[in-house]
Amino acid sequence: MSDLLERLRAGLPPEALITDPDVTASYAHDMASFCEAGTPAVVVLPRTVEQVQHVMRTATALRVPVVPQGARTGLSGAANASDGCIVLSLVKMDRILEISPVDRIAVVEPGVVNAVLSRAVNEHGLYYPPDPSSWETCTIGGNIGTASGGLCCVKYGVTAEYVLGLEVVLADGRLLTTGRRTAKGVAGYDLTRLFVGSEGSLGIVVKAVLALKPQPPQQLVLAAEFPSAAAACDAVCRIMERGHTPSLLELMDRTTVRAVNAMASMGLPETTEALLLCAFDTPDPLADLAAVGALCTAAGATEVVPADNAAESELLLQARRMSLTALETVKPATMIDDVCVPRSQLGAMLAGTAAIAEEYDLTIGVCAHAGDGNTHPVVCFDHHDPDESRRARESFDAIMALGLELGGTITGEHGVGVLKKEWLARELGETGVELQRGIKAAFDPLGLLNPGKLF
Amino acid sequence: MSDLLERLRAGLPPEALITDPDVTASYAHDMASFCEAGTPAVVVLPRTVEQVQHVMRTATALRVPVVPQGARTGLSGAANASDGCIVLSLVKMDRILEISPVDRIAVVEPGVVNAVLSRAVNEHGLYYPPDPSSWETCTIGGNIGTASGGLCCVKYGVTAEYVLGLEVVLADGRLLTTGRRTAKGVAGYDLTRLFVGSEGSLGIVVKAVLALKPQPPQQLVLAAEFPSAAAACDAVCRIMERGHTPSLLELMDRTTVRAVNAMASMGLPETTEALLLCAFDTPDPLADLAAVGALCTAAGATEVVPADNAAESELLLQARRMSLTALETVKPATMIDDVCVPRSQLGAMLAGTAAIAEEYDLTIGVCAHAGDGNTHPVVCFDHHDPDESRRARESFDAIMALGLELGGTITGEHGVGVLKKEWLARELGETGVELQRGIKAAFDPLGLLNPGKLF
Ligand SMILES: Cc1cc2nc3c(=O)[nH]c(=O)nc-3n(C[C@H](O)[C@H](O)[C@H](O)COP(=O)(O)OP(=O)(O)OC[C@H]3O[C@@H](n4cnc5c(N)ncnc54)[C@H](O)[C@@H]3O)c2cc1C
Ligand SMILES: Cc1cc2nc3c(=O)[nH]c(=O)nc-3n(C[C@H](O)[C@H](O)[C@H](O)COP(=O)(O)OP(=O)(O)OC[C@H]3O[C@@H](n4cnc5c(N)ncnc54)[C@H](O)[C@@H]3O)c2cc1C
Repeated sequence: MSDLLERLRAGLPPEALITDPDVTASYAHDMASFCEAGTPAVVVLPRTVEQVQHVMRTATALRVPVVPQGARTGLSGAANASDGCIVLSLVKMDRILEISPVDRIAVVEPGVVNAVLSRAVNEHGLYYPPDPSSWETCTIGGNIGTASGGLCCVKYGVTAEYVLGLEVVLADGRLLTTGRRTAKGVAGYDLTRLFVGSEGSLGIVVKAVLALKPQPPQQLVLAAEFPSAAAACDAVCRIMERGHTPSLLELMDRTTVRAVNAMASMGLPETTEALLLCAFDTPDPLADLAAVGALCTAAGATEVVPADNAAESELLLQARRMSLTALETVKPATMIDDVCVPRSQLGAMLAGTAAIAEEYDLTIGVCAHAGDGNTHPVVCFDHHDPDESRRARESFDAIMALGLELGGTITGEHGVGVLKKEWLARELGETGVELQRGIKAAFDPLGLLNPGKLF
Repeated sequence: MSDLLERLRAGLPPEALITDPDVTASYAHDMASFCEAGTPAVVVLPRTVEQVQHVMRTATALRVPVVPQGARTGLSGAANASDGCIVLSLVKMDRILEISPVDRIAVVEPGVVNAVLSRAVNEHGLYYPPDPSSWETCTIGGNIGTASGGLCCVKYGVTAEYVLGLEVVLADGRLLTTGRRTAKGVAGYDLTRLFVGSEGSLGIVVKAVLALKPQPPQQLVLAAEFPSAAAACDAVCRIMERGHTPSLLELMDRTTVRAVNAMASMGLPETTEALLLCAFDTPDPLADLAAVGALCTAAGATEVVPADNAAESELLLQARRMSLTALETVKPATMIDDVCVPRSQLGAMLAGTAAIAEEYDLTIGVCAHAGDGNTHPVVCFDHHDPDESRRARESFDAIMALGLELGGTITGEHGVGVLKKEWLARELGETGVELQRGIKAAFDPLGLLNPGKLF
């Protein structure tokens, strides 16, 4: 331990090292409740690539595990400390190094906050789509670690689609450059994509080349109220089947709507069973909204209200973005599922989730990136009540089982971390896990990077 | 050898096996000239996953290398046979298994021809964007093997963007399922992407879940003539910088234009130094073309001609699509480069290529996916002339060196195969190659799958 600190100090400025146990304890875990978290030996906040390399060389020399962290807004425990580990927080490496409108790329350090980058590129008429609802705090490094999604994905895809190249410090401290600055490239296996979503288990991302889009017109949002989740899901299918390309297509169930109103008096319609939000950032959004509105009505919507202007649209988005946080206030504790099913199975997924809530006698609020088939059933419970806690855990698992049954995945965007480890193995099967372990071994033969996560 | 045939026969119908050396020889290589190719021991044309598994089990048992093949339209020797190998041609596994307009996916076997799939999904109002110019013959399996591009990429991206999930037979015959049918998913390392562009070196793709887009409006094309390549490249930068999203943005130099006219009397303007083709499939393509036309004129275009209708547009596309084939008629032999640079470096790339042509006293025609910065300099030479052949090879290499210098990659879409092996190592560096080999070893520890390709 003292050897570790001494060696770390040799290559780091004093302010980059935190050893005060009261402070290091605050780096122990991300935003997922109920995931095991250990006690870090030390927290390091490097500012340069060389400092990261020094940390990794030291870790390798002394066989000390390293847990990379961004803003710790993760929802799966993927950034949780393990006992005696070095927490390597990248938040101080937060420079935007380059924005190029001709090449449509940005080059950034991993600690850049998502919203900071988004605003910076906007000033150049550019757009960085990935927009997790935590965007005001989460980092690009964390977004890459988890392959984050958000509201934009139904039209613009997830973080993976925007990472062109990386600089990565490997477990042994070597620096690896992957990918490219170009629009295309097929030189060898796609190591860049391998790092996206790898939850810090293959290397430390210290620089990223990100693809940008031209900034689209301001989107306009429509809100449609449905008498049942089934009707709302049917509308989602009809909208996509007809070839529409909304810039978002989101669903909030009654529990979610009420929770959001309770938290922020948003004035959302409390009597509705399912609220669908649909937006377009096309040249003529009103025409597109009208067409979608008609499809909603045909699917049984009782009320279809297009926002009159950008400000009203932004309010509706805010309401949607605060859904997870609002649902967390329903009961003392929550567990957040992240099942993604083929969009044609969305209705079955919501019906099944409602049945599970009834079976386990629990409140399970659902908000969903409906256009992607990505649901977030939030199991609300009182963790002081052992029986309710048990039922919560069982229902949480039942929801993942249902997702797999419907041809889906256990995680659309929040990742595996420690929360869904057993379920990852179920989804991938034995052969899949074996190959994943093989890849892990090729990058991190000593198993020092974020041990105990994924598998 | 007789043991190999006997064992193969045990699990394959007679018509799936070709042993006649005259016929097997015709499976020796793809469309890249001057790449080494060996003599296959046998060609197998399986129709089922089980048959593929049988072949791989046999190959593993007897330690016989296997070379997967699609239509052999590849341009890097990646499908070339090695001596004594089993050629595993997937062209008979050519069923489209499913097309879902709600989920916007198609499920296909690997032997489906790109254009066949494109037409089939069109009938459902859907669009499968990846469109290599060889699309009437190349297969989806080959497209996945090489991570193919095409004309659409500047707006719609490459094959990698459209592969959601795969079924793969591993070297030892086990069946692996990767990825998903859903719009999103982050369950573990992205094995799907690892297979895309892996040139048959990690496993045999036997099924693919592909993402589809709604069919866009018919695109309209504009042709702009420039007095210099530099002016045309400048126009490309201005178009992208202004936030336009053309559905294609292609460049043909004077040599290419003349070659196409000579082959097919297309009536392209022979006096122009660089012809730029730009298209939009937006709701109002004429307005977009007018804006782009103005940018071309400002950049020095001497003539800007929007196609009057879809038929004229299609003719221009045909001219562009036949560019590589036409350039092959300029001299008895050609070597086709595939360097992709950041689009801001396109002008430097073309100027440098012209200088290389002069230095080596050769004709080098260039066509380019200009919007992507992806150039195809085609070195034209007489392979009966040893000195010209040497100069051709040297200029081919000089072009790749230039591409790397300009921050680009040696291959935007054609892949590495045997043609660019040494150059892959240069681009990736020692650490990169070591990790790539580590991945290869995790999937194919005996090194039986397409040996001698990539690295
Ligand atoms: C209110 C709320 C709303 C949310 N909404 C969404 C949403 O809409 N969509 C969505 O996808 N997620 C959402 N999330 C989850 C979370 O915000 C995302 O997963 C985000 O990407 C995490 O970023 P972070 O900087 O907080 O990373 P962390 O949580 O600190 O880390 C995430 C993972 O990345 C790794 N990592 C971090 N930095 C690096 C690096 N430089 N190199 C290597 N590995 C690294 C960590 O080890 C960890 O495995 C939400 C969370 C909250 C609290
Ligand atoms: C005239 C012409 C124009 C072209 N234009 C373009 C273009 O615009 N863009 C572009 O990107 N390319 C282009 N190409 C190159 C070529 O057509 C593409 O690389 C195409 O994807 C190859 O497909 P194929 O079926 O012919 O595959 P093959 O050449 O047979 O194989 C390609 C690679 O994939 C592997 N492979 C094939 N099937 C499988 C499978 N089922 N499982 C695992 N591995 C497999 C092979 O081993 C090999 O490594 C062009 C070629 C020609 C001749």
